[in-house]
Amino acid sequence: MFHLCVVGGFGCWFSSCPVNFLDHTQHKGLAVAVFGVLLCKLCGLILSPNPLPFTTDSENKQNWVILGVFYYPALYYPLLACGTLHNKVGYVLGSLLSWTHFSVLVWQKIDCPKTPQIHKYYSLFSSLPQIACLAFLSFQYPLFLFKGLKGTEKNNATEDLSSSYYRDYVKTILKKKAAKISTSSTETPKLPQRIIDAVKSYIYTPEDAFRFPLKLAISCVVAFITLYQVGLLLILTVVPTLQTARAGVDEDIANVLAGFKIILSPDKHEVVRLVVYYMWCVEVCYISALTLSGLVNLAMLMRSMVLHRSNLKGLYRGDIYNVYNCQRSIRASRPALVCWMGYTSFTAAHICIGMLIQAMVFFLCLLIAVFLIIIPVLHGQNLVLFKMLWSMWPFWLMILLAVLIQHITARFCFIKKTAGTRDLDNRGNLFLLTYLLFPVNVLIGVLLAIWRIVITALFNIVHMGRTDISLLNRNVEAFDPAYRCYAHYLKIEVSQSHPVMKAFCGMLLQSVSQETNAAQRSRDAEEGIQLVHQEKKQHKVSSAKRARGHWQLLYTLVNNPSLVGTRKHFQRQTAESFVNGSLNRNTKEGSKKEAATKEAEAAASN
Amino acid sequence: MFHLCVVGGFGCWFSSCPVNFLDHTQHKGLAVAVFGVLLCKLCGLILSPNPLPFTTDSENKQNWVILGVFYYPALYYPLLACGTLHNKVGYVLGSLLSWTHFSVLVWQKIDCPKTPQIHKYYSLFSSLPQIACLAFLSFQYPLFLFKGLKGTEKNNATEDLSSSYYRDYVKTILKKKAAKISTSSTETPKLPQRIIDAVKSYIYTPEDAFRFPLKLAISCVVAFITLYQVGLLLILTVVPTLQTARAGVDEDIANVLAGFKIILSPDKHEVVRLVVYYMWCVEVCYISALTLSGLVNLAMLMRSMVLHRSNLKGLYRGDIYNVYNCQRSIRASRPALVCWMGYTSFTAAHICIGMLIQAMVFFLCLLIAVFLIIIPVLHGQNLVLFKMLWSMWPFWLMILLAVLIQHITARFCFIKKTAGTRDLDNRGNLFLLTYLLFPVNVLIGVLLAIWRIVITALFNIVHMGRTDISLLNRNVEAFDPAYRCYAHYLKIEVSQSHPVMKAFCGMLLQSVSQETNAAQRSRDAEEGIQLVHQEKKQHKVSSAKRARGHWQLLYTLVNNPSLVGTRKHFQRQTAESFVNGSLNRNTKEGSKKEAATKEAEAAASN
Repeated sequence: MFHLCVVGGFGCWFSSCPVNFLDHTQHKGLAVAVFGVLLCKLCGLILSPNPLPFTTDSENKQNWVILGVFYYPALYYPLLACGTLHNKVGYVLGSLLSWTHFSVLVWQKIDCPKTPQIHKYYSLFSSLPQIACLAFLSFQYPLFLFKGLKGTEKNNATEDLSSSYYRDYVKTILKKKAAKISTSSTETPKLPQRIIDAVKSYIYTPEDAFRFPLKLAISCVVAFITLYQVGLLLILTVVPTLQTARAGVDEDIANVLAGFKIILSPDKHEVVRLVVYYMWCVEVCYISALTLSGLVNLAMLMRSMVLHRSNLKGLYRGDIYNVYNCQRSIRASRPALVCWMGYTSFTAAHICIGMLIQAMVFFLCLLIAVFLIIIPVLHGQNLVLFKMLWSMWPFWLMILLAVLIQHITARFCFIKKTAGTRDLDNRGNLFLLTYLLFPVNVLIGVLLAIWRIVITALFNIVHMGRTDISLLNRNVEAFDPAYRCYAHYLKIEVSQSHPVMKAFCGMLLQSVSQETNAAQRSRDAEEGIQLVHQEKKQHKVSSAKRARGHWQLLYTLVNNPSLVGTRKHFQRQTAESFVNGSLNRNTKEGSKKEAATKEAEAAASN
Repeated sequence: MFHLCVVGGFGCWFSSCPVNFLDHTQHKGLAVAVFGVLLCKLCGLILSPNPLPFTTDSENKQNWVILGVFYYPALYYPLLACGTLHNKVGYVLGSLLSWTHFSVLVWQKIDCPKTPQIHKYYSLFSSLPQIACLAFLSFQYPLFLFKGLKGTEKNNATEDLSSSYYRDYVKTILKKKAAKISTSSTETPKLPQRIIDAVKSYIYTPEDAFRFPLKLAISCVVAFITLYQVGLLLILTVVPTLQTARAGVDEDIANVLAGFKIILSPDKHEVVRLVVYYMWCVEVCYISALTLSGLVNLAMLMRSMVLHRSNLKGLYRGDIYNVYNCQRSIRASRPALVCWMGYTSFTAAHICIGMLIQAMVFFLCLLIAVFLIIIPVLHGQNLVLFKMLWSMWPFWLMILLAVLIQHITARFCFIKKTAGTRDLDNRGNLFLLTYLLFPVNVLIGVLLAIWRIVITALFNIVHMGRTDISLLNRNVEAFDPAYRCYAHYLKIEVSQSHPVMKAFCGMLLQSVSQETNAAQRSRDAEEGIQLVHQEKKQHKVSSAKRARGHWQLLYTLVNNPSLVGTRKHFQRQTAESFVNGSLNRNTKEGSKKEAATKEAEAAASN
C-alpha cells in the first residue's frame, strides 16, 4: 500500500497533541474565540500607556509592547491547548481556565469601567468582543465535558474523515454537473437580471455542501473584530471632542474669527449659532463617513467570503487558470507557507488600514459635498460651484452635443446591418467627422481622464481592506503584496484539505475497518490512517480481494505517476540513480512514468 | 460572386474621394502631420488670451474657444483633402497650401518671437512641432507631385491590396509557427533572463512584417506632441518664475521669515544664502520631476506600441481571450465606433492629465526626499526622520527576526521533500508558530498594507497616461473608461483591416485581373473590387473555370454561413419573411444555414 501521508493533510495520528489546534479535526469555535481574544489584547497593548498589567513604566513603552506581543499568545495558549487533548482532564482544565479569565476580565471592567485614555468608556467598549469570546469559551468547555461524560463526543480524528461532509461534497459536485448543463444557455442575461446577480454576489448564503477551512473562518472573525475596534477607536477619539468643542462655543469666537478676518455676521449671537451649526455639520459628516466605511467594509467582508468559497471550489476542481489567471502548481513551498502563517494577521492589518483611509477619504468627500453643494443650495447663498459651472454652459452644451452627435451618427449613419452582419457604412463621412471632432474629443478625453482617476481611486480605496483581489492590473497582479499572500495561502489550503481526497481517504479507512475484526476496530480508530502504512500480510484476505487490491493499486499508479516516487523500492532506486549522477528533472519525470508502468505490470501479474 | 464589401475595410472604390483620408490606402504621413498641426493649434487656443487671430475680444474667451475648436479643423482640412485626390491638381494645390501655411507661420514667429503670455518664448517653442509638421507637408506634396509627373506614383487603391505587405504578413505567420514550436520549452526562464525580457518588452523595435494601422500611428505621434507641449508648459510656467524669485532674494527675507517666527540664522547674509540654496533645491527637484515624468511617459509610449502590436497580432490570429480576458465578438457596434472616433483624442488627453499628475507627485516625493533625507544627511543636522527610525530599532529588529524565523523554519523545518514531492512536516510546530507570531504578523501586515498603498498609487500614477491597460482589477477592467475605449477601438481596427483578409482579397483581385484582357485591366485598377460585384457572364470563361468558381463559392458559403445573408436573392427572401412576421433571431440563424446549404447545392449542380 502506498504512503497516504504524502498527499498530506490528515494529522490524525497527532490529533490529541496539544499543538494541533489549527487542524480540521479540531473544535473550530475554540480556535476562533482564542484568536479573537488575542486580537483585542493586541489593540489594548498598542493603545494603552501601560501595555502590560504588571508594570506602569510608560517610558519604555516600546519594549513593553514588544514583550506583550509575545506574552499574550503564551498567556492564552493553555485555553487553546486544553481543547486539543480530547479528554475529560483537558475539558475540566479548559473550563477552569476560561472561567478564571472571564471572571477576572468582567470583575476588572465592573470595578473600574472608566479609564482616562482616549475616552472614559473606550476601554470598556474595546473589551466587549474579548468578553464575548471568553464567555463563549466558558460555555463551550463545560459543554464538551458534559458530552464527554455522556459519551456522545466521538473521537474527532476519525469523525473528521468518516463524517458525511466530504461524501456529501462529492455527491453535490457530481449532482450539480447535470443541473448546470441545462441552465447554461448562450443568451446573455438582461440588465435587471445582471444587477440582481451583482447584488446577490455580495450576499453570503451558507451552503450545506461547503465548509470553510479553519484558518479562513478565523480570518473572517478576526476581520470582523478589527472592523469593530477600528470603528470604535475612530468614533471615540473624535466625536466626544467635537461635541465638547461645540458645547463650549461662546461669543469670543466672533473675535477670534475676526482676527483671521472672517466675519460671518455682524451679530455675535448669529456668529455663535452659525459656528455651532457648521460644527454640527462636520460631526454629522464624520459619523456618516464612519458608518459608510463600516458598511462598505462589511459588504466587502461578505463579498470576500463568497469569493473565498468560489475560489476554493474552483481550485478543488482544478480550475487553476480561472482563479489565478495563470497556471501555477498547487503545492507547498517556502513563500506559500510563510504567507499561510501570516494570512489571518495580514487580513486584520489590511482591514484596519483600509478602514482608516476610507474614513478619511469619505469624510473629506462628504465635507466638500456638504459645504460646497448642500448648504449653499439649502441657504441659497455662496453658490460658487454652481455659478462657475453655470458660466461654462456653452462648454457643457458643446461637449453634450458632440457626444450625442457621435452616438447618433454611429447608430444611424455609419453602421449598416445587412441580414445579421454589421459593417461600416459611409466611411468617408465617418473619417470627416472623426477629423472635425478631434479637438472637441480631446476636451471630452480630459473629462474621461478625470473620471478615470476618480473611479480608480474610489475602487482602490473601497477595496483596500480586501486581500482576495489585486488592486493592480491583471498582468502585474502578483506585485500586490496582499493578493500575492492570498494566492499563496490558497495553495497551501487546497493542497492540505481537498474534500474529495478526504472523502477518498475516509472510504479507504472504512473499507479497512470493515475487513478487520471487531478487536482491531478500536485500534484502527485510534491510529487512523497509519494502518494503511503497514503491510497487510498478517491479515487473512482472500486471493480475490488481493487481486482487487492490486488492480486498484495499478489504476492509481498509472493515473498518478507522482505517487510512484513515494513507494519504498522506488526511493531506493532513485537514491542509486542520484548517486550515479544521472538524475535530472526530465529523466526523473520519465523514469517515474516508466516505473509506474513497470510497477503496475508487476502488480497486475500477481 | 459574393459581395466582398461586406467583410469590409477596402474603400478602394472611393479612394479618390476627398474625405477618405483615414483609410489604409492613403499617404500616412500627410494625415499624421495634419493631426499634429491641429493639436498644436488646440494647445494655443486654450492657453492664449486671444484664441482666434481675427479677434482680440478676451472677455468672451470661452465662446471664441468653442468657435476655434471647429474653425481650425476646417482651416486645415484642405491640406488633408488634397492628398486624397491622387492626381496632379491635388498635389499642386496641396503644395501651394502647405507652403502658404508654413511661410505664414514662420514669418509670424520671426516677426514677433516674444509674446507676453506665460513666458516670452513660450509661443515660439510651443509652435515648433507645428512648424515641423508643416515643413514635412511642404516637402511631401512637391515630392508626390514629382513622382506623379514621372509616373512612378501608382494608384494607391490597388497598390494597397496588391502590395506585398499582406502576403509577407501571411508568409511570416506561417513561417513563425514552425520556429515557435522549437523554442517553447517547459522550463521557466531564470531571473537575469526574465529581467532582460522585461526591459526588452519596453523597447519598441520595428518589424518588417507588421505595419501599424493609420489611426494608431496618428495616436502615437499625437501622444508624443502632447508630451512635448505639456512638458514645455510645465517648465516655462514655473522655472523662470522660480529663477526670478531666487535672483530677487535680499536681506529683507530675514525680517519676513522672522515675522513667521522662522529664524534660520542670526546672520542676515547667512539667511539669504540659505534661502537661495533652498530655492535652488526646489528648482532642481522640479526640473528632475519633470524630466523623470517625461522619461517615464516616453517609456510608457514605447511599451504601449509594443503592446498595441502584440494585441493586434493576437486579435488577427483570433486570440481574443488573451487580449480581452473574456470572449467578445469582434465586430462593429455603436459604442465601438464612438470609441474609434475618439481614440486619438482620448490618448492625447490621458497623456496630458497623466503627465500633470506625475509631475506633481514626483515633485512632492523629490521634495520630501531632498528636505527630509538628502539635505539633513549632507549637513548632518535636523535628522528628525533618522532619529525617529533609530529610536524604534527594537521594533524593526523584532519585525526582521519574525520574518526571518518564519522563512527559515518554513524552508528547513516545515517542508519535507520526498522524492520530488513536497509536503508539510511538523504540523504541530507550524500551528504553534502561527499562533505565537499572530500579533507580530499583524504589525508586519500593517507595513505590508502601507507598501500596498504605495505600490498601487505609484503604478496607477505611472500608467495613468496609458489607455491600453486597465488600472482596475481584472474582473472590473471594463469600468476603466480609457481601457474600455481602447478595447472597443481595437475591435473596429481588427474587423476593418485584417491583413490575412486583405491578402486574400489581393489574390482574388489578381486572379480576376489575370483572367480579363489587357483593355479591361485599366478599368479593373480604377474600379477595384467593385468588379467583383458584377455578374461575370459577359466574360468568356470556359466551363471548367465556371465550375471551379462554383465550387469555390460552395466551399466559402458552407464555411461562412453569415455571408449568405448578403447574397441578392437571400436578401429578397429575408425581406419577404420579415413581412410575414416570422422573423426572429434564432430562426434567421437557422434559415441562413439552410440557405447556405441550398445555395451550395444549387451551385454544385451547375
